[in-house]
Amino acid sequence: MNEFLEACIDQALGTTPADLVIRDADVFNLVTGTRTRTDIAICGDRIVGIGAGYQGRRVIAAAGRIAVPGFIDTHVHCESSLVTPMEFEACVLPRGTTTAVCDPHEICNVLGTGGLDYMLDCASRMVMDLRVQLSSCVPATMLETAGARMDAADLAPYRAEGQVIGLAEMMNFPGLLAKDPVVLDKLALFQSGHIDGHAPLLRGRALNAYLACRVRNDHETTGLDEALEKLEKGMHLLIREGTICKDLAALAPALTAETSLLCSFCTDDRNPLDIFEEGHIDHLIRRSIALGVAPLHAYRAASFSAARGFGMTDRGLIAPGQRADIVLLDDLETCAVAQVIARGIVVEPALFAGRSPPAPIGLDSMRRAPVATADFRAPTAGPAGPVIGIIPGRIVTEFLTMDLPWSDGLRHPDPARDVLKVAVIERHGVNGNIACGFVRGFGITAGALASSVGHDSHNICAVGASDADMACAVNHLLDQGGGFVAVRDGVVLGALALPMAGLISLEPFDVVRASLEALRTVVRGMGTSLPEPFLQLAFLALPVIPHLKITDRGLVDVDRFALITG
Amino acid sequence: MNEFLEACIDQALGTTPADLVIRDADVFNLVTGTRTRTDIAICGDRIVGIGAGYQGRRVIAAAGRIAVPGFIDTHVHCESSLVTPMEFEACVLPRGTTTAVCDPHEICNVLGTGGLDYMLDCASRMVMDLRVQLSSCVPATMLETAGARMDAADLAPYRAEGQVIGLAEMMNFPGLLAKDPVVLDKLALFQSGHIDGHAPLLRGRALNAYLACRVRNDHETTGLDEALEKLEKGMHLLIREGTICKDLAALAPALTAETSLLCSFCTDDRNPLDIFEEGHIDHLIRRSIALGVAPLHAYRAASFSAARGFGMTDRGLIAPGQRADIVLLDDLETCAVAQVIARGIVVEPALFAGRSPPAPIGLDSMRRAPVATADFRAPTAGPAGPVIGIIPGRIVTEFLTMDLPWSDGLRHPDPARDVLKVAVIERHGVNGNIACGFVRGFGITAGALASSVGHDSHNICAVGASDADMACAVNHLLDQGGGFVAVRDGVVLGALALPMAGLISLEPFDVVRASLEALRTVVRGMGTSLPEPFLQLAFLALPVIPHLKITDRGLVDVDRFALITG
Repeated sequence: MNEFLEACIDQALGTTPADLVIRDADVFNLVTGTRTRTDIAICGDRIVGIGAGYQGRRVIAAAGRIAVPGFIDTHVHCESSLVTPMEFEACVLPRGTTTAVCDPHEICNVLGTGGLDYMLDCASRMVMDLRVQLSSCVPATMLETAGARMDAADLAPYRAEGQVIGLAEMMNFPGLLAKDPVVLDKLALFQSGHIDGHAPLLRGRALNAYLACRVRNDHETTGLDEALEKLEKGMHLLIREGTICKDLAALAPALTAETSLLCSFCTDDRNPLDIFEEGHIDHLIRRSIALGVAPLHAYRAASFSAARGFGMTDRGLIAPGQRADIVLLDDLETCAVAQVIARGIVVEPALFAGRSPPAPIGLDSMRRAPVATADFRAPTAGPAGPVIGIIPGRIVTEFLTMDLPWSDGLRHPDPARDVLKVAVIERHGVNGNIACGFVRGFGITAGALASSVGHDSHNICAVGASDADMACAVNHLLDQGGGFVAVRDGVVLGALALPMAGLISLEPFDVVRASLEALRTVVRGMGTSLPEPFLQLAFLALPVIPHLKITDRGLVDVDRFALITG
Repeated sequence: MNEFLEACIDQALGTTPADLVIRDADVFNLVTGTRTRTDIAICGDRIVGIGAGYQGRRVIAAAGRIAVPGFIDTHVHCESSLVTPMEFEACVLPRGTTTAVCDPHEICNVLGTGGLDYMLDCASRMVMDLRVQLSSCVPATMLETAGARMDAADLAPYRAEGQVIGLAEMMNFPGLLAKDPVVLDKLALFQSGHIDGHAPLLRGRALNAYLACRVRNDHETTGLDEALEKLEKGMHLLIREGTICKDLAALAPALTAETSLLCSFCTDDRNPLDIFEEGHIDHLIRRSIALGVAPLHAYRAASFSAARGFGMTDRGLIAPGQRADIVLLDDLETCAVAQVIARGIVVEPALFAGRSPPAPIGLDSMRRAPVATADFRAPTAGPAGPVIGIIPGRIVTEFLTMDLPWSDGLRHPDPARDVLKVAVIERHGVNGNIACGFVRGFGITAGALASSVGHDSHNICAVGASDADMACAVNHLLDQGGGFVAVRDGVVLGALALPMAGLISLEPFDVVRASLEALRTVVRGMGTSLPEPFLQLAFLALPVIPHLKITDRGLVDVDRFALITG
């Protein structure tokens, strides 16, 4: 280390040439808001000098370009990109995201600490800084069957890992409010550390209790009033724009000069098509500026405030001593990324080609027998009953009560009124559960969809107008080791295999993207107007998001945090 | 911990009464700047609820009072208050300072890690949160003789102490710039941690090099341009208003909406009279508002930004989950403190009476033989030579060159032109060094002053118009175990004993204050117009502050960081 410090001092003083100099950049200062044309000198992974006249062993001519600090995604489940973390990097790093704080709870809910080990292994091989939080909710709740269990004692040894900041999103806020000892054990472990939050619609005294346990931030805020209450209570607001959840338009007015130090950006769950077509954190910056946020506060949220909110004091500014995570822009307001430097390394295509990814894990994660059409019957006492109401672009659902076609003691879907059957099929080899219910809003009139991505326990989720097609879709899914399947009249119309834990493809990003585009065309042809039907399906099984959800154990009234009869 | 979390949840939800409720306070929100009349519910040492209608086992009626978070002194040498840390607490806590980040480098330069242990022991017995940084410069430089030496290996085991945040002010910036391995060893130890700075007048590439070693902050900034450069480079600005160093007037314009997240307050060295007469951090808040700083930004600097700048995420806001460090004010703009709550405890006089301080240490720290008049002779080649020029209210000095009376090969003081002799006398039992020089600006025409407080090695500093009086003052100082002495014509006119390490009184704050007031009257009677002649004397020996200083080894040209002949 002393040798490195000596080099830093020499290169900062200019007595030896810097390893890398970015020449004549227009540096956007995120403290003062000023822009200054100057050089940036870099030694190894560290910025060591700002000022004119630095000499470098390598020089990037940046005249006409604006330099801003590398972007930080403050909350992301890399698994939602459907590719490996290293493919995720190849996709987002050239778009300026130099740090991502991930919660590997998708893969951990399938594979336990093996998933954590895999993510840490990937992080050690990457150029961008992938921080790995310790998943707090494996299983997510007691209302579903997960593939693994991680208790406080399992998490404790990981606290000392260099890539770990703290406990990942404490989704089980009902458990916290009910003083569930399993939840309190985990919170207790991180009282002097860092705890990420997840508190949709939590307000008033319930929010007070949640914060009193030292939860720091929230990425589930969807309303402006809710955002202001959380900011006033010192909660770090992680403004999300994912594939399903798009909160930026509602929350942009909360991002001001005074609050910008407590506001950041995150993607949470963003699929590869959106990353490819719209961008990653660059997209959030662009959008927020278009929505009226001052560029200073948008870029501050994207880097400085994000870093400080997660205790990363070594990044978020272009200043000596900071990590050399720098994005060069052709235009500030549209966040037009021209070039990216991550920990002093110039991001070029060759960078990604040269890396060696770890061996895939969890290739045998579809642990159940094939299903039969009869497994999807929905016996009820009458035609009336609960129906999950989808709200497009939201993962919050409506709790509807509807009369549906009813015969022989069975309730049936009613595609004419846009009501399909929905089922969750346990796939971790634990109990073989199958639960059925009904959902409105998919817009599909015939056929079925199935997915092994089903937040957060990742059982198989299926939706369909016909029990036979649902069974066919699920069985095809089992055969291909997980992923997405679309079926009509017993014919597989499209599929994407995700053999790693049933969540992640083994293919490169571009291949996955092309497959998804083909699948999207197929599903649109089935009649849906939802932009992301598979993700919308995947979130129907998430019983920590209001109001009505379904797991392998049955329908869940999230507001009462209890199973109900369907 | 789980039991405590359960209580926090119950009290936050209001299902059980809170331990303490502050009723109807006007809470000043340091994120949004809004003021809201509401209740604050406290469980143990933690705020658990904000909102109307909380019930409490104890209730403080706060209608008409403004509630702000407890104040943080981000850089203080408690020893400069001349009382023990527990007496320091009794003085500053009722004025709203609930956290202080101290650097015990005065006592450590005399006693080594024994001083650190003593401060940590005191901290464990206090109500306010005394954070103890690890002194980086013991000895301060190689240009003087200290009583101890603390190397990187001595500091390393203390990093894990709960009260320790990081490395204390890296004063030896010339050593850093020269890549001194002793300095780099210490910096290397804290590259992933926290390093406090001390960088008077450091600008441009030298500042870059300093920051490149991950130094975080600076409390030695005196000019506005300097402040803006440091802020632009991401340096946390600790705006100081001590007894000698008063930087607030110059730096207040730097404290704005945009920069307030990187600005805080500190006192560094503040004597008991100033604390008693003007206040502590409350004084800095008052003054900065009077100087035109918006109250939001002044209070933010005093708490929120200070906390975040030192990685203390558990304080600085009145919000659930934060430490219950709360100041109730009668008036916001004049920071009129009415009542203080520190970690949930109401600050009352009985609080201080009930504590048990640790046994005093370092009672035998005046380790040298008495001096003789002849020891103060100043042989030179001629009448011309360097004279230290005092700048009232600053610890930076001028490097003057003056002709002085000269006879028999000796240079003599010239009280008529306000030039006295100054001497530094080694007192740690190491080598018995005595160095002499000249100083302009004390305004004393006869007699001598002596002090065992002499930053940072705390050798004895003496100044006088007569060698005999200087010898008399030093010998009296040795007899009383350290402190301050004023002598004229062989008669001790006034004295204050500081027997603990020659720095700290064994008496309560009020007794020390009364002694200092008497001594101040005496010294004013000797002709000085300096408000704090003993502190001004104490800083003449500090060779890390420009431009001309004196240590037991001789005169120091700080700009060249070298001893020179006098």
